[in-house]
Amino acid sequence: MTVTSRNSGLVGGRPVVPSRGSLRPLGLGEVRITGGFWADRQRVNGSATLDHARSWMNRLGWIGNFTTGGRGSPDRRGREFSDSEVYKLVEAMAWEVGRTGDPGAVPGVDDLVAAIASAQSPDGYLNTAFGRDGQRPRYGDLASGHELYCTGHLLQAAVAGARTGAAAPLLDVARRAADHVCDTFGPDGAWGLCGHPEIEVALVELARVTGEQRYLDQAALFLDRRGHRTLPRDHLGWSYYSDDVPVLTATVLRGHAVRSLYLSCGAVDVAVENGDDELLAAVAEQFDRALARRTYLTGGVGSRHEDEAFGDDFVLPADRAYSETCAGVATVMLAWRLLLATGDGRYGDVVERVLYNVLATAVGDDGRSFFYANTLHQRVPTGTPSDDEERLGFGGGPRAPWFEVSCCLPNAARLLASLSTYLVTADDAGLRVHQFADAEVDTRLADGRRVALTTSTGYPDDGAVTVRITRTDGGAWPLTLRVPAWAAGAELVTAEGRRAVPVGDLVVRRDFTAGEEVRLELPMRPRFTRPDPRIDAVRGCVAVERGPVVLCAESLDGGDLDTLRVEVIAEPVEDDGGVAVSARFDVPADARWPYGTAEPPSDTALAPLHLVPYHRWARRGPSTMRVWLPTT
Amino acid sequence: MTVTSRNSGLVGGRPVVPSRGSLRPLGLGEVRITGGFWADRQRVNGSATLDHARSWMNRLGWIGNFTTGGRGSPDRRGREFSDSEVYKLVEAMAWEVGRTGDPGAVPGVDDLVAAIASAQSPDGYLNTAFGRDGQRPRYGDLASGHELYCTGHLLQAAVAGARTGAAAPLLDVARRAADHVCDTFGPDGAWGLCGHPEIEVALVELARVTGEQRYLDQAALFLDRRGHRTLPRDHLGWSYYSDDVPVLTATVLRGHAVRSLYLSCGAVDVAVENGDDELLAAVAEQFDRALARRTYLTGGVGSRHEDEAFGDDFVLPADRAYSETCAGVATVMLAWRLLLATGDGRYGDVVERVLYNVLATAVGDDGRSFFYANTLHQRVPTGTPSDDEERLGFGGGPRAPWFEVSCCLPNAARLLASLSTYLVTADDAGLRVHQFADAEVDTRLADGRRVALTTSTGYPDDGAVTVRITRTDGGAWPLTLRVPAWAAGAELVTAEGRRAVPVGDLVVRRDFTAGEEVRLELPMRPRFTRPDPRIDAVRGCVAVERGPVVLCAESLDGGDLDTLRVEVIAEPVEDDGGVAVSARFDVPADARWPYGTAEPPSDTALAPLHLVPYHRWARRGPSTMRVWLPTT
Repeated sequence: MTVTSRNSGLVGGRPVVPSRGSLRPLGLGEVRITGGFWADRQRVNGSATLDHARSWMNRLGWIGNFTTGGRGSPDRRGREFSDSEVYKLVEAMAWEVGRTGDPGAVPGVDDLVAAIASAQSPDGYLNTAFGRDGQRPRYGDLASGHELYCTGHLLQAAVAGARTGAAAPLLDVARRAADHVCDTFGPDGAWGLCGHPEIEVALVELARVTGEQRYLDQAALFLDRRGHRTLPRDHLGWSYYSDDVPVLTATVLRGHAVRSLYLSCGAVDVAVENGDDELLAAVAEQFDRALARRTYLTGGVGSRHEDEAFGDDFVLPADRAYSETCAGVATVMLAWRLLLATGDGRYGDVVERVLYNVLATAVGDDGRSFFYANTLHQRVPTGTPSDDEERLGFGGGPRAPWFEVSCCLPNAARLLASLSTYLVTADDAGLRVHQFADAEVDTRLADGRRVALTTSTGYPDDGAVTVRITRTDGGAWPLTLRVPAWAAGAELVTAEGRRAVPVGDLVVRRDFTAGEEVRLELPMRPRFTRPDPRIDAVRGCVAVERGPVVLCAESLDGGDLDTLRVEVIAEPVEDDGGVAVSARFDVPADARWPYGTAEPPSDTALAPLHLVPYHRWARRGPSTMRVWLPTT
Repeated sequence: MTVTSRNSGLVGGRPVVPSRGSLRPLGLGEVRITGGFWADRQRVNGSATLDHARSWMNRLGWIGNFTTGGRGSPDRRGREFSDSEVYKLVEAMAWEVGRTGDPGAVPGVDDLVAAIASAQSPDGYLNTAFGRDGQRPRYGDLASGHELYCTGHLLQAAVAGARTGAAAPLLDVARRAADHVCDTFGPDGAWGLCGHPEIEVALVELARVTGEQRYLDQAALFLDRRGHRTLPRDHLGWSYYSDDVPVLTATVLRGHAVRSLYLSCGAVDVAVENGDDELLAAVAEQFDRALARRTYLTGGVGSRHEDEAFGDDFVLPADRAYSETCAGVATVMLAWRLLLATGDGRYGDVVERVLYNVLATAVGDDGRSFFYANTLHQRVPTGTPSDDEERLGFGGGPRAPWFEVSCCLPNAARLLASLSTYLVTADDAGLRVHQFADAEVDTRLADGRRVALTTSTGYPDDGAVTVRITRTDGGAWPLTLRVPAWAAGAELVTAEGRRAVPVGDLVVRRDFTAGEEVRLELPMRPRFTRPDPRIDAVRGCVAVERGPVVLCAESLDGGDLDTLRVEVIAEPVEDDGGVAVSARFDVPADARWPYGTAEPPSDTALAPLHLVPYHRWARRGPSTMRVWLPTT
């Protein structure tokens, strides 16, 4: 593999550094978010969430598991995958150090790394849940034990550490762990694969950092082994682990959503490194079909609580939406990889949707509470959160400080800390702006010319995005702006004036001068959105969107949402700090039997109903909520 | 308790014999189904299902577990509750012997009883999954181990055995097992309750058979212990076992549907025996609310696969309906107990709905395959069943010969074998006909007068039900006929002529003479049924019902059911062997993103769409299916 050229330089850390592809991702040293929507969240993430997560992991013994001196059960605490949460926390911490450029930004990283390193066996194996006294033997439960999954997260943490300089010693730990995996499961080793994909994507990125071909080969080997129904079949079926059909021949994402998405990320990475266009196209097709048939309006995926899984095509119940926060993070990961590989700007739309409607929804304002599942319809009012209570369930309540399974918060944290790297890429000749934020960019074009610019916007409240060139070495180059698919009617304002621009990739090719500005104006009129009629769960409903933001009704703003009906002849309108639609509340007669021959009750008076961004829901107190609004 | 008066006489076996209440159930010796819809199913049940179930239980070692001479793990096979399936099979066999009056009708009962008896410990304890070598200790996992649940089914089998004369020796086994339970968990024993209710309802019936007050008291004690959040809480919450709120103060059925319903049955039984009207009213209210807000059109309950549970009010997704067959059986059990206790004929409507739309659906024509879950919308065509394959999952496929968890088939079998006892009751002065079938009744009125009659009908295809008095000792008495809630426009034909009768209980009080006929004519026009608008999952849809039967569309009859839209201006009409509606199939453009601002596609041509009874679905080959039909 030839990863060196793009891996060098003082660009700062980035989660994904493909050795080829259409676009080059910029690093934390090249793009910085300076204000606005995401700056606030990054600040809370750095100042509260990381410490909050570490405190809980300490309290629950998940960190202590690494420092028990190899004592196994019954000393070990937490679920079998708790090691991975610690790794994701370290990864998030490393990105935070990289983001701030301040090695002291996150105290305690070194202690965590030391604890992790202390638990590694001399042969490189590292997992606190297997192989010790009273525990199952190493690799004793590949289907359900999450052993290689944990190793994968160790590798990703080490990659972040190596690329940011924080947690740098973890790279050696990761290499030894990866070597142990390759020795054990390589071509001459045991045949095996992990029930929860993750090791694949991690091995590729470790290969990119280290230049070790062997890691890439092992990732490809794990990929090849999947889809042949060799994992044990339980009542959830082989699709649960995407082991029903090989990646190359599958037609849609299916089964456990996070597993399916992590696997797809690994497949894209392997495809890119090995130049396997067929594999790349297969994953892109599967993702496309999942987007067209198995994705919520919010960009969330997973419509089944039972197995945290994609449902069949068009099975997207709002009131039991699972839409796990981790699946949102994983969707961003996959869309990002496909964007880099193909240059298809549509994937930027996907990233935007998930960021504003899943990631922004999941994490509480204080950064110390979060949703595991992100329902689109809350029928029973959420309760009042407790600061101190670990949550056992996944849905139905308010944001919780912690869950028994708390994969989501550290996953959100690592994405938030590294978020600036998802804004802008370099292509063959110029730069492409995919996400809109107040940001500063300072980088080099492919031909070596240095370019700096700022992006300024009130996004997502305001649709104007101003790109100001602050430095250029002269000569023309193309600046490409993503005009989101929802932004029909967008306009571009340049020195030459204003013009309408179509949705899609907007290329502005100019001999830019320092101080020059280009302004993209996206229409932010609130709009009704109608579902495909095949989505039974929301038939006869509309949603309201404004820009990239999905809105919702909360019962706090009045009315029994079970009986709400919205008048769609009148378009939604801006109202004080939000959006309003015209609605009535028709209370049906309370029948002994809820099925009959009668028509619905007659119309009651229309009144404005205030809507709020979905990502703001459940922040004002107990409430019911719905995204999809029944129509009259 | 005073159970003797109603427990004596040559009425034949009956599952439920309350010592007081509004109605007296007739026994297998008093009511016999002679032909028609249910006679066919009873014949298949007796000739095929019982043998099929026993073969599978033998093959899988569930019966062998009783005869291993006390050897424990790893010899023991099956899930921890497999004993209960053997008990339900024995119960079904006993009712079959009682139904046919032929002690040789079901060969092998005695062998099963002997096997069961051989596994009982000298102290009365009997469970093959606990307490033996390598197994968990007795009562070592009350929350999840199903130990007392299994004992409950043993008791019910013994009750059936005692009341039919088949499996009579099981009564002594059951008494000793019940004594062990009372000794262990009685007022002076350990505090405990079972995660899966069943022991309660079983102990009451054993008390009714034996006259042992102690069993009734123990049932009441178990009831009192529930609802105080003492069972371990996992992510499903205490409501999973109805342990969140005491039975007396709960307001709706919730959590695991079968658990909730079995518990309610036990509560009704305790309330009846102890004259506890408050408890009786509480359960009736909870059931009423579940019927009004948490029940499918088919009468099925359970809208979540994850925990086999009731959903929140109005959460009734068609395409992931769980509607477990066992929950249907349990609904009949509860409705029947409430009917006997209160005399409220509405409960007969519930029984009818579940019988024709859950029970009749679940079991295959050959009696050797069945549904565990009874979905109302099948999106992916069912496959072709295999005669020999045990099913691991619960939904999505065709009727399967067996499941890893096969509670449903023996449960259906015991109900089918005893079904004639659910048709007719005696009240204070006369008789009441609750269910319509070709049947012969020979019994005594409360004052001792002997009465015989036949009921003749083509139900559910034909709505005429003729009651012919074949014997009467003279003097007036009231004959009450249930006019179903769906049967607006019903008429009664007597010697005096024809007259319209309202829905509800129709009392015909006459000085009947032998040979006299009374005919009830129920309107069988197919009708559109609309859901309460709060049931989001089926908004904008209608169902079609005909008489007590819910209809459905199958893709075998043409068209992609994902794109179906029905024209509701035209009423459904009878067509050749079924019902037809006017429908169009509008194929939406296949968008990359299934949410947009566009209106649905314009109308295509209308054509008749043939519907079949829901209970007939998936009998002609692989098909998709839907009960709820989107409207234009």
